[in-house]
Amino acid sequence: MTMMKEYTCEYALSAALCNAQGELAPAQLVEDILEVATEHADALGVGFDRLAEDGNLWVLSRIAIEMNRYPRLHERYALTTWIEDYNRHFSERNFEITSADAGETLGYARTIWVAINIDTRRPADLTSIEHLRGTVSDRPCPIRRQGKIRPVAEPQIRNTYTFRVSDIDVNRHVNSARYVEIILNQLGLEEYDRCMLARFEIEYRREAHYGDTVDIESTLDSDGIITALTLAGSPVCLSRSALTPRIKQGD
Amino acid sequence: MTMMKEYTCEYALSAALCNAQGELAPAQLVEDILEVATEHADALGVGFDRLAEDGNLWVLSRIAIEMNRYPRLHERYALTTWIEDYNRHFSERNFEITSADAGETLGYARTIWVAINIDTRRPADLTSIEHLRGTVSDRPCPIRRQGKIRPVAEPQIRNTYTFRVSDIDVNRHVNSARYVEIILNQLGLEEYDRCMLARFEIEYRREAHYGDTVDIESTLDSDGIITALTLAGSPVCLSRSALTPRIKQGD
Repeated sequence: MTMMKEYTCEYALSAALCNAQGELAPAQLVEDILEVATEHADALGVGFDRLAEDGNLWVLSRIAIEMNRYPRLHERYALTTWIEDYNRHFSERNFEITSADAGETLGYARTIWVAINIDTRRPADLTSIEHLRGTVSDRPCPIRRQGKIRPVAEPQIRNTYTFRVSDIDVNRHVNSARYVEIILNQLGLEEYDRCMLARFEIEYRREAHYGDTVDIESTLDSDGIITALTLAGSPVCLSRSALTPRIKQGD
Repeated sequence: MTMMKEYTCEYALSAALCNAQGELAPAQLVEDILEVATEHADALGVGFDRLAEDGNLWVLSRIAIEMNRYPRLHERYALTTWIEDYNRHFSERNFEITSADAGETLGYARTIWVAINIDTRRPADLTSIEHLRGTVSDRPCPIRRQGKIRPVAEPQIRNTYTFRVSDIDVNRHVNSARYVEIILNQLGLEEYDRCMLARFEIEYRREAHYGDTVDIESTLDSDGIITALTLAGSPVCLSRSALTPRIKQGD
């Protein structure tokens, strides 16, 4: 088996995948991250199929993204992924996002994946894929690790959302990228015109399903925007975002 | 300039793009259709950039899709597009969707594109790209043309939806594929588990924007499911869907 420590995918940002700012939408970046992670894990023989042999499943636990800028309309960009750490219960997988033509670094992402048993949903033991240790790379990822996200106190923005057919993925849960959209929808178009999402963290706590109605509550403090998506009071996911003003060229 | 009468793109259906039935979601198929159409038009020198030189813009007016089955998880599939007809005001562009490995025909789509003036939003004259006539293909598209969609009388399913940040595209309008999701969300997960969307038609009437709240009303009759998305009583888009029961292998 090839022990390819790094894996790269290239994309071109078509108009259909652009957001209102003419950039790669953060939720689409999360979809790309999931795709590249899956392909690299498959290439290393530690993908969903291999874990399923042991009755286990990879579950995405956390993402942190930090961007200098997002790929723009028609820009070719690349995601390179590598494993920073691995132990019996989880793996840390990082990403660098670059502009494919210039090689400019656009940003980085960190993800944490845990393995759970398909039936019991309890943490699984990854000892059987111990060879993964040989693929750990010392390539640096110069962004902060995800921190613990505090609960939302005295929310300033409140919404509810009921999950529909288009929100559900092949595992019959809500699509991981869809949570990101719902969280970012707490702010308006004007905010994203004026500011760029510089850092975004999400912690997935439990799975939501078709027909579930969640509360989405956000609070703005010195630390950024904290958002909690809760189902009957219990957290489905927690997120922290930091926005920075967009500086016009020439300013 | 190459006068490539047909243009083909290949895709692989990753888990992230699958719907709850483990198939290519119809809205994702619409995104693929838009992407392939845009790329072919660019290759023919009649894309958005060329029309912009005359102060014009392509606008998608209608889509009709008919599928025998949808691409499945991990299946490689291809879209081939060609122009069936062209005149001063619009072009008819068709698509065949095939399974890339077996070459099996999965379905067909018909689209109608009109050109409008960017400023006046009135129909534009396409005489300046008359060379497009040389690219008309006689490849057959064996599905019915889009018919006129009657308004919804006595709706049986009513919902409302307010467009958020994640629904808006680079032109600051609601994303064309997002309307398809909102329309298909009128039915539940169980309906799509039991039945497949065999035919889907959509007619785009006017543009909706960020913050607009639309009424979504559907009526079921012998002709299928008619859905109207209206903004203050005026139609944004109209749709007709036909579902067929899924036949299990071996039945």
